[in-house]
Amino acid sequence: MTALPLIDPQTFETLKDALRAALPEAAVITNPDRLAALLAEERALFEGNATFAVAPATTEELSIAARLCHAHGVPMVPQGGNTGLVGGAVAKGGEVLISMTRMNRIRAVDPVNYTMTVEAGAVLADIQNAAAAEGCLFPLSLGAEGSCTIGGNIASNAGGIGVLKYGNARELTLGLEVVLPDGRIWNGMRPLLKDNSGFALKHLFIGSEGSVGFVTAAILKLFPAPAEVQTAFCALPSPEAALGLLSLARRLSGDQVTAFELLSDFACGIVCDHAGGVFPLSERAPWYAVVELSTSREGSDLREVFETILEQGFENGLIEDAVVAETLDQRDRLWALRERTPEAQKRAGGSIKHDISVPVSDIPAFIAEATQAVENYMPGIHPCAFGHVGDGNVHFNFTQPDGMDKQAFLEHWDPINEIVYPIAMSFNGSISAEHGVGLLKADEISAYRPEIETELNHRLKAALDPAGLMNPGKFVGNVKSQNQS
Amino acid sequence: MTALPLIDPQTFETLKDALRAALPEAAVITNPDRLAALLAEERALFEGNATFAVAPATTEELSIAARLCHAHGVPMVPQGGNTGLVGGAVAKGGEVLISMTRMNRIRAVDPVNYTMTVEAGAVLADIQNAAAAEGCLFPLSLGAEGSCTIGGNIASNAGGIGVLKYGNARELTLGLEVVLPDGRIWNGMRPLLKDNSGFALKHLFIGSEGSVGFVTAAILKLFPAPAEVQTAFCALPSPEAALGLLSLARRLSGDQVTAFELLSDFACGIVCDHAGGVFPLSERAPWYAVVELSTSREGSDLREVFETILEQGFENGLIEDAVVAETLDQRDRLWALRERTPEAQKRAGGSIKHDISVPVSDIPAFIAEATQAVENYMPGIHPCAFGHVGDGNVHFNFTQPDGMDKQAFLEHWDPINEIVYPIAMSFNGSISAEHGVGLLKADEISAYRPEIETELNHRLKAALDPAGLMNPGKFVGNVKSQNQS
Repeated sequence: MTALPLIDPQTFETLKDALRAALPEAAVITNPDRLAALLAEERALFEGNATFAVAPATTEELSIAARLCHAHGVPMVPQGGNTGLVGGAVAKGGEVLISMTRMNRIRAVDPVNYTMTVEAGAVLADIQNAAAAEGCLFPLSLGAEGSCTIGGNIASNAGGIGVLKYGNARELTLGLEVVLPDGRIWNGMRPLLKDNSGFALKHLFIGSEGSVGFVTAAILKLFPAPAEVQTAFCALPSPEAALGLLSLARRLSGDQVTAFELLSDFACGIVCDHAGGVFPLSERAPWYAVVELSTSREGSDLREVFETILEQGFENGLIEDAVVAETLDQRDRLWALRERTPEAQKRAGGSIKHDISVPVSDIPAFIAEATQAVENYMPGIHPCAFGHVGDGNVHFNFTQPDGMDKQAFLEHWDPINEIVYPIAMSFNGSISAEHGVGLLKADEISAYRPEIETELNHRLKAALDPAGLMNPGKFVGNVKSQNQS
Repeated sequence: MTALPLIDPQTFETLKDALRAALPEAAVITNPDRLAALLAEERALFEGNATFAVAPATTEELSIAARLCHAHGVPMVPQGGNTGLVGGAVAKGGEVLISMTRMNRIRAVDPVNYTMTVEAGAVLADIQNAAAAEGCLFPLSLGAEGSCTIGGNIASNAGGIGVLKYGNARELTLGLEVVLPDGRIWNGMRPLLKDNSGFALKHLFIGSEGSVGFVTAAILKLFPAPAEVQTAFCALPSPEAALGLLSLARRLSGDQVTAFELLSDFACGIVCDHAGGVFPLSERAPWYAVVELSTSREGSDLREVFETILEQGFENGLIEDAVVAETLDQRDRLWALRERTPEAQKRAGGSIKHDISVPVSDIPAFIAEATQAVENYMPGIHPCAFGHVGDGNVHFNFTQPDGMDKQAFLEHWDPINEIVYPIAMSFNGSISAEHGVGLLKADEISAYRPEIETELNHRLKAALDPAGLMNPGKFVGNVKSQNQS
């Protein structure tokens, strides 16, 4: 990766003084402890570095800060809850880190229009709760929801477990407010379902990982709150059976499947061994699915529908055994088997991870082929696949062979990526399904997409961030800025 | 509007010869009758002009054609079914018209993956039928479906009656193949629900009205086919009551409302008077809604659910009277009251039309305020509002006062736009909800959006079509090309 443009330390000092003069005291962070928290990175894959950070409380404060950074030619790194898995929010020492966490108000919930208006730093779980308090559902849901921010979710087009039914963060974002790299504000806060009055600007900023601007506020799409939820844990003979069960469940329920998560027996086992999981069936099976149906209708026959799905699943040989949660507590315990997989992987030794998506119908073939190829490369490695099979997204992970040294194992990260990625691409898939590109994949992403696509990405980056100041070196990789060319 | 760059007639001749030499004979159209059909425009608002057209049969042929046009510096106008309402597919005499209608194959339907692969020129109704033949639903549905093409639907991000539940063309498009202005092909045909590996390129091309490239093929999202559909025609006291009924129906049905269309008594009346509509209730009311619930579940209790919704609607004063269709034929007759409104408006005299969207909860206030303002301007004018209230989109149209001269009435198009548009914008709405910008609104769109948004639109246009050759003068209005600057 090319080094960041070097900024003279004196420029940083001058900029810091200018920021202090222009902003309230609380907006410029120099306290080493507070700074350290913003620089630590989830998986410790990257080392953060910055001498100060800016934490604006309002869009206007951010606008002022960006204008000053722009005027001084200093790059900026936006950061939400700092929970990302690809280093997209890591400051490398040549930029100003801008934390969005103080802009965390939930401005309004409108249950008639099924929308809510939030600031970028609002925590996802707080948003879910505010929607629920008005009888609505904000369906975005993922592991980090207790601390990730909606701005980060939007900037990374977060996925999670509700995508099958409700879409990614992209589909849930109606309006957007953005501070551009030069500090100007684009107000795209239109709570409209239909608006064809120009390029889809919001879609450029959604999922662009802070590479062309700061998401500062959003209007989100809500749904009627579920009145009834039914959750089952099913033992399956194969990923093929999971697809069959998904199809059956969608058809028989009237398309009310709101989650369909797959996990391998190894993944389930480490959750039971290392993360407090309780196995709910009498016998182990090669694969499991957590299946959830829900409806906003009171007094529905969802439970009977679920029983019919499971009966037909047994009859067709798609299911070996199953349990339906009878209480909320049981439901939580079933979900824990899936949700604690990342935590269990951490405790079970070194992990090498992939965030793959392939067409839903190709999941079984992809898993079979890629597992075989990696096992050929490293006999004894533990495939630990799990994920959102309903939307084609497999977290195709591996845990180290028993007794191997963790560091020695992790040195195989790149070679194993290089085995898995071409197989994903041969299925017309993506090597960056929902976690994003960030620093982790900024260089390799170009190798796995057509050259013309990289060129279009670079043209867009140059059009929207001509000075190359937003989150440099990430997402689209290194692009010559117009200033440099 | 600035004139198109003038192209020397000799250049057209040279280009025509080059196209004839490079393409099969059928791909270059000079026959005046065939040309006339491509140049005629739906509402006769614009006059088309071209000495020849190109109709490629494959992506490769289009790629060759675009490369030649690009090399000769001649602008191109893509055209699908030529059913657009804003002149987006009109050639003005300085461009090569490129008809996509020969690229009309349905390449594949995959009912496991819930996707299908189609070429741009495939007719929407043929796509719906091909999906249905595999037990699936392609939910995009609009008046012109018998002749409009999916490429045009995608290029204009078409809406229609299924948006409330299924989204616009944008949400239904998973993968895209595009021929760029210089003739190169971008293959974004990935049938993935999750893919965060760069800017959302497909969203730039979707809804961009052929201003930065040709949509040549797409992978579309399918849904389980409905096993049961229930349709009601409800008499309502007011648009407010429509919102209350929509909310009630979403909640009580478990969010299975697949259409919710509003029409005024005037709109209903002209359909009965001029377009064969049969009024199904005993008494007229100020407003009506066509409400449809559907489910893919066999043997559901959808009919009982609908009865409950209607009962509660009566009790709450939201509904004055209602009829639920008992047969497919009855259902068609109820739908005709809404669907034939445009046809009836044509026969009832001059029409001045608006394609507005506002937040769903603001529809009643918008209708009230804008109706009053236009009636103040022209007493006796007939408000003829109808539309997709479930997604905030109102076709806020007017029919001429009784006895007025049609041409004299139509001269008030601009002044009446100028009354209605600021009111829509005061509700944070859009003046171009689903029909697009095209030629009709290319100039005025800039007046109704923030300057910074126009600038961003122009920067994107310049980044993706640096020579300014795609559909010039439309969509983003006139932009200085990089060649001209």
